[in-house]
Amino acid sequence: MTSCGVVDGVVTLGHGGGGRLTHELVARHFGAGAAAGARLDDAARLDVADARLAFTTDSFVVTPRFFPGGDIGRLAVCGTVNDLACMGARPVALSAAVVIEEGLAEEELARVAQSMSAACDEAGVRVVTGDTKVVERGSADGLFITTSGVGVVREGIELSGSGARAGDAVLVSGPVGQHGLAVMVARHGLASLHGIESDCAPLWGLVERLLEEVGGAVHVLRDPTRGGLAASLNEIAEQSQVRVVLDVPSGIVTGAVGGACELLGLDPLTLASEGRLVVVVDGAACEQALSVLRAHPQGRGSIQIGQVVDGGGAARVTLATVLGTERVLDMPTGELLPRIC
Amino acid sequence: MTSCGVVDGVVTLGHGGGGRLTHELVARHFGAGAAAGARLDDAARLDVADARLAFTTDSFVVTPRFFPGGDIGRLAVCGTVNDLACMGARPVALSAAVVIEEGLAEEELARVAQSMSAACDEAGVRVVTGDTKVVERGSADGLFITTSGVGVVREGIELSGSGARAGDAVLVSGPVGQHGLAVMVARHGLASLHGIESDCAPLWGLVERLLEEVGGAVHVLRDPTRGGLAASLNEIAEQSQVRVVLDVPSGIVTGAVGGACELLGLDPLTLASEGRLVVVVDGAACEQALSVLRAHPQGRGSIQIGQVVDGGGAARVTLATVLGTERVLDMPTGELLPRIC
Repeated sequence: MTSCGVVDGVVTLGHGGGGRLTHELVARHFGAGAAAGARLDDAARLDVADARLAFTTDSFVVTPRFFPGGDIGRLAVCGTVNDLACMGARPVALSAAVVIEEGLAEEELARVAQSMSAACDEAGVRVVTGDTKVVERGSADGLFITTSGVGVVREGIELSGSGARAGDAVLVSGPVGQHGLAVMVARHGLASLHGIESDCAPLWGLVERLLEEVGGAVHVLRDPTRGGLAASLNEIAEQSQVRVVLDVPSGIVTGAVGGACELLGLDPLTLASEGRLVVVVDGAACEQALSVLRAHPQGRGSIQIGQVVDGGGAARVTLATVLGTERVLDMPTGELLPRIC
Repeated sequence: MTSCGVVDGVVTLGHGGGGRLTHELVARHFGAGAAAGARLDDAARLDVADARLAFTTDSFVVTPRFFPGGDIGRLAVCGTVNDLACMGARPVALSAAVVIEEGLAEEELARVAQSMSAACDEAGVRVVTGDTKVVERGSADGLFITTSGVGVVREGIELSGSGARAGDAVLVSGPVGQHGLAVMVARHGLASLHGIESDCAPLWGLVERLLEEVGGAVHVLRDPTRGGLAASLNEIAEQSQVRVVLDVPSGIVTGAVGGACELLGLDPLTLASEGRLVVVVDGAACEQALSVLRAHPQGRGSIQIGQVVDGGGAARVTLATVLGTERVLDMPTGELLPRIC
C-alpha cells in the first residue's frame, strides 16, 4: 500500500477521482487496443461523410442523487452537453442508459426523468435512445446513469487540449467549486454551510456566443469537473506542452465556497464545477472574449486567471503565492471527493 | 404485490427483464419528455448534414462477468454493434463508460479491456471515447460497462420494427438461446450442462452481406437479446400491427440447449441470444436470403421459422402446437433471467 491509499493490483476509490490515478488506470488498460480516453479531450472527433461530429460519454454515480442546485438527471444531461460544447460542438442527440437497483422508488425515477427532460429543453437537445437495466438489491447504489452525446462541430472550429500556445490568456466563466462543495454538503448534512448550490448548467449557449464572436482565437475549452481547475489546467499544460502561470484573483470562489473550503481544509482549485468554462484564448482577443462571456447570463462572473508561457520542456501549472514566489499546482492525486458526478 | 412479484411504486428485477414490465417502465418515465426507447427500435436514426446515422446505447451488468463463449467486455462491444447492424448501419465508433466497484482486481479489468479490444477488431470498429468511475465497495457489483455506438446507415436502407408486411417470411440466422443459457450455467455452476457456449458475436458482417444481396427486400432486422425471440417478435408484431405465425422447426435450438431447457423448465423462445439475427424479408426473396445467410460463417444455421399475416386489428405472435392448434406467444413478463447482459 502506498501513501495515498492505493493497494497494488486492485482498483481503489482514488482511481475514480479524475486525477493522476484515473489517467494512469485508463492508459494502462484502455490505452493500446481501445483508445478510450487516450487523447484526454472531453470528447472524440469523428468525421462521417460531410458531417464533422463530436462523440462523448460519461457515467454518473453521484451521491446523494439530489443536492442543492441539481440532481443526477440534470447532471447527466449537462455533463455530456458540456463535453460536446468543449469540442465546439452543438449537441444534437443524447443517449441515456440507466442501471437501477431493485427497490428504487418509482417516484424518484420519475423526478430524475423529469429533471433530465427539463435540462434537455434548456440545452436544446433530446434523448433519442436509451436502455434500462435492473440489478438486485445491494448490487448498485440506487441509480447510475450513463449518457452519451453526438454533436456537430461548428464550422472552422477545431478545439483540443493541445491548442494552448505561449501568449494565450486563461479565463474562467465564473467562480469555481460550487458543484463539488454542494454535493459534499448534501452528503454529510453540513447544515451550517447552507447557501452553497451546484453550478450545474448546460454550457452550449455560452460557448456558441463565444465562438460566434471570437472564433478561431479560442484555442482550448474545458469544463473543470472532477479534479477541478487543477486537473483541467494540468491536462492542458501536458497536452500542449506549455506552462500555465496562474495569478488567481479572489473572485475565483464565492465567499461561501471560500469560507467552507477554509473550514474544511479543501483546496477550491481541486473542487468540481459542472457549469463553468475554462477558456484558453489568444492574448490579443482576451478582452473581447471576457466581454462576450460577461454579456451572457452564464458568464457574468468571467475573469482572467492566468496566462500560457513557453514550457521550456517542462509542462506544468504554477501558481503565484502571496509571498511573491511560485508553487507548482499538481495534477490532483488520490481520492479527492469521490462520486461527485 | 401482484402475482409476478411487482411491488407497487418500486422498481423490481422484473422491470429489467426486457419484457413487458421494462417497456411499461420506460414508457411511463422516459416516454414523454425524453424519448428513450420510445420507438422500440434497437437504435435511433439521426440525420446530420449528409450523414445518415444510427445511434444506440446499452448498459451491461451481466453476472458472472466471464462465461463460456464470452465475457462482459465482448458482450458490451457485440451488443452495441448488433443494435447498429439491425438498423442497417455499419458501426463507425463506440464509446465505453465503466463503473468499477472499489476492490476489483486490475488483472480482471485488463482481461475485460483486452476482450473489448479483440471484439472491436472482429467488428471493425474502435472505442474512441470513454469514462471511468469508481464507487465504494458494496455500491456496485464489480463492473458495469455502458457502450454507445454511432453507425452509418447503408444507402437505400431504412429499417424499423414497423416494416413487417403480410406475406413476409421470418428467418433466424441460427439456433437461439445459447447466450442466456451459458450465463445461467456459469452463474449457478451447473457443471452437468457443459458444452453450452454463448453465441455472442458481432453481426455487421452478416448483415452487410444480406443487405448487399437482398437489399430493400429486407424489412426488419432484430437481434433477439433480453426476452429472446418471444420479445423480438412481439415487438415487431406490435410496431408493424401484424400477426406473426410461427411454425418453429426443431433446428431452432441445439440439442444441448433443448435438453437443458427441458431439464430446467425454460422456454427457449424467451432465452437471449447475442449473436443471432431475426430477419423479416419479403416472401419472394426468402430463399435468396436464406442462401446468402447460410453462405456466411455466422449464418450457417439459418432457417425459416414463420411468416407474417394480416393482423386484422390484433397484433400478436402465434405458434402452431403439436396438436395442430395455435397458441399465443406472449411478450415475456417479469423476471425471466435477470442480468444476462
